[in-house]
Amino acid sequence: MKKNPWKKLDSRMVYTTPWISVREDRVIRPDGKEGKYSVIEMGHDVYIVAMDDQERFCLIGQHRYPTGSYSWELPGGNTDGEDIIEAAKRELWEEAGLKARQWQEIGTYEEMNGTTDCVMHVILARELQLTEDNKMAEEAIDNAKKVTIEQALEMIKTGEIVCALTTAAILKTALILEKKI
Amino acid sequence: MKKNPWKKLDSRMVYTTPWISVREDRVIRPDGKEGKYSVIEMGHDVYIVAMDDQERFCLIGQHRYPTGSYSWELPGGNTDGEDIIEAAKRELWEEAGLKARQWQEIGTYEEMNGTTDCVMHVILARELQLTEDNKMAEEAIDNAKKVTIEQALEMIKTGEIVCALTTAAILKTALILEKKI
Repeated sequence: MKKNPWKKLDSRMVYTTPWISVREDRVIRPDGKEGKYSVIEMGHDVYIVAMDDQERFCLIGQHRYPTGSYSWELPGGNTDGEDIIEAAKRELWEEAGLKARQWQEIGTYEEMNGTTDCVMHVILARELQLTEDNKMAEEAIDNAKKVTIEQALEMIKTGEIVCALTTAAILKTALILEKKI
Repeated sequence: MKKNPWKKLDSRMVYTTPWISVREDRVIRPDGKEGKYSVIEMGHDVYIVAMDDQERFCLIGQHRYPTGSYSWELPGGNTDGEDIIEAAKRELWEEAGLKARQWQEIGTYEEMNGTTDCVMHVILARELQLTEDNKMAEEAIDNAKKVTIEQALEMIKTGEIVCALTTAAILKTALILEKKI
């Protein structure tokens, strides 16, 4: 593999909200010329495949404002600088009302890596804890459903799942667990 | 499925380059309260699985500035408002030096749909045209390789492919073509 030909000269923030920041860098491009590059800073995200003892995992449905779609996705979100596994534990509890004993990072993905610096960590959570506390939290979440890998693949095939990261994470899980598709 | 609870009140552009635009909307959120929502406007992208008669397709490798990674991806890019299939033809020629006779949209994905409005169209191109012109263009591209679905799945499993969209598009292709994984 060739050496990374991009070089950063300097950097300034041009737009910041509590959710996104846009940075404008002065760079040397692969052709050797100077240019500008705008990067949307997102940092690290975690997405969790929370597998129960029947090998079903949780998807969360929600209306996404930017695209107007109803999207079934793995629970997850930004780490806000937290440790990856700690962030995954927090997100799984907040979004799905679930806790687990076994946690394993099975890979990372990038989305829009020509525009954002975001790295998405796929976390496989197993040995779900079924406490009373947990059961109440889980029941309070009305936009969750549990699917097998086979059911998820059908949702991908028909276009019911539109989230690229969720799709990629399901495939990674299937490959790691050596499931036949 | 419930009705989309988000409502847009008004909108203003806050940052624009030739590649990205950031829009700030005043919205009514699902909880009924007014808020702000920043949307990165990207429009429509096309990504092409260009399958030859040995069922190998083309991946393009490049260093991505925002993440610093070397990323193997399907050829593709923004439609710039063009017709989806016309844009796919242009991108496949520009990025991979390939032309094809048969074109089929096999699905769409979203990436970071909490932040951007981008819709990614996955296009399956078949019956590649192997003219002299085409051969020369293809040979001039030094960052391309051809892989089978099985080889691509191995690259996904090992983490050599990090692009979520490329991974999702390969899975969609495998499901549509009813390939065993």
